[in-house]
Amino acid sequence: MNETIKTILTRRSIRKYKPEQFPAEILQQILEAGLYAPSAMGRQPWHVVVVRGLDKIAEVNREVKAATARMKDNPYADYVGSESYTVNYHAPTFVIVSGDTTVSPRNAQFDCALLLGNMFLAAHSLRIGSCWINQLNVLNDEPVFRKYMTKLGIPKENQIFGCACFGYADAPNPTAVARKKNAVVIIE
Amino acid sequence: MNETIKTILTRRSIRKYKPEQFPAEILQQILEAGLYAPSAMGRQPWHVVVVRGLDKIAEVNREVKAATARMKDNPYADYVGSESYTVNYHAPTFVIVSGDTTVSPRNAQFDCALLLGNMFLAAHSLRIGSCWINQLNVLNDEPVFRKYMTKLGIPKENQIFGCACFGYADAPNPTAVARKKNAVVIIE
Repeated sequence: MNETIKTILTRRSIRKYKPEQFPAEILQQILEAGLYAPSAMGRQPWHVVVVRGLDKIAEVNREVKAATARMKDNPYADYVGSESYTVNYHAPTFVIVSGDTTVSPRNAQFDCALLLGNMFLAAHSLRIGSCWINQLNVLNDEPVFRKYMTKLGIPKENQIFGCACFGYADAPNPTAVARKKNAVVIIE
Repeated sequence: MNETIKTILTRRSIRKYKPEQFPAEILQQILEAGLYAPSAMGRQPWHVVVVRGLDKIAEVNREVKAATARMKDNPYADYVGSESYTVNYHAPTFVIVSGDTTVSPRNAQFDCALLLGNMFLAAHSLRIGSCWINQLNVLNDEPVFRKYMTKLGIPKENQIFGCACFGYADAPNPTAVARKKNAVVIIE
């Protein structure tokens, strides 16, 4: 088995992190890997905000909780509203990926997912854990949170399609859940 | 630079293929890598149809062209309608990834993209080229094509979120297009 496939098969979503930050040089490698994802028509409709440091992320966390609480039909209301919820599982780096749907209306969401997928694998290859976070995806149209997105530098045309936390895992690599049966049909 | 990051940075979308099929053992490695993608809540809402062989793929191509032509507002009408269009750039393996939106209504699309991204990287690490194909994503509600999807084994609850072709590249690895400037904001 080659190293790339080994990385893919052993990468797990990490939900317990050490508070220590990882070096900026490692972040740069992870980011570059993300930006080399393919995108529809090569349009690269993505934008990435990286929030570094537990104090800064605490602000994001407060804004996410407040915005979720203000919404009537937020599907994550109970989850995000619980006292123990944090957007980052206490990891010291939090990444918000948004896509410009005016540039790529049907495909920006896929391009952003591929960018995050590349970041996950690059991170794991560098011994950095990661986890996809969904709860911000439903806050794009909440007016106060939208202003906060602008404050973070997210372009006003963009929609958040996915977030992730990154850091050193504080537990052994989890075992993979069983893979779903009958997920593949091969027609020869 | 480690092998995983090298794979990520050198993987390109391939649009010219040799007609020769690659071995089933390689396909199995690519598929396994795909199925080890993370998914929201570990739900694995994905389903993968692999069509192997140029004759079989020709049938898919005919169905896609006919369905596109029948639709009123298909955004790819001109593109798919051109004589030179094929769903697979003449590659000998074509993969259709669909997701169950009843299981994961907000996130199946991202999970399917991550599955495809893993397949692309595993393929490249094994010297197999690949390219994401979008044109089937807009055919889910076309009634005749929907029947054809069922014939291919796609579950009736599923939506196609992405397709891809795989095969041996018939040209040197393309140069990456320039990466977009100002795509990243880092908040320390």
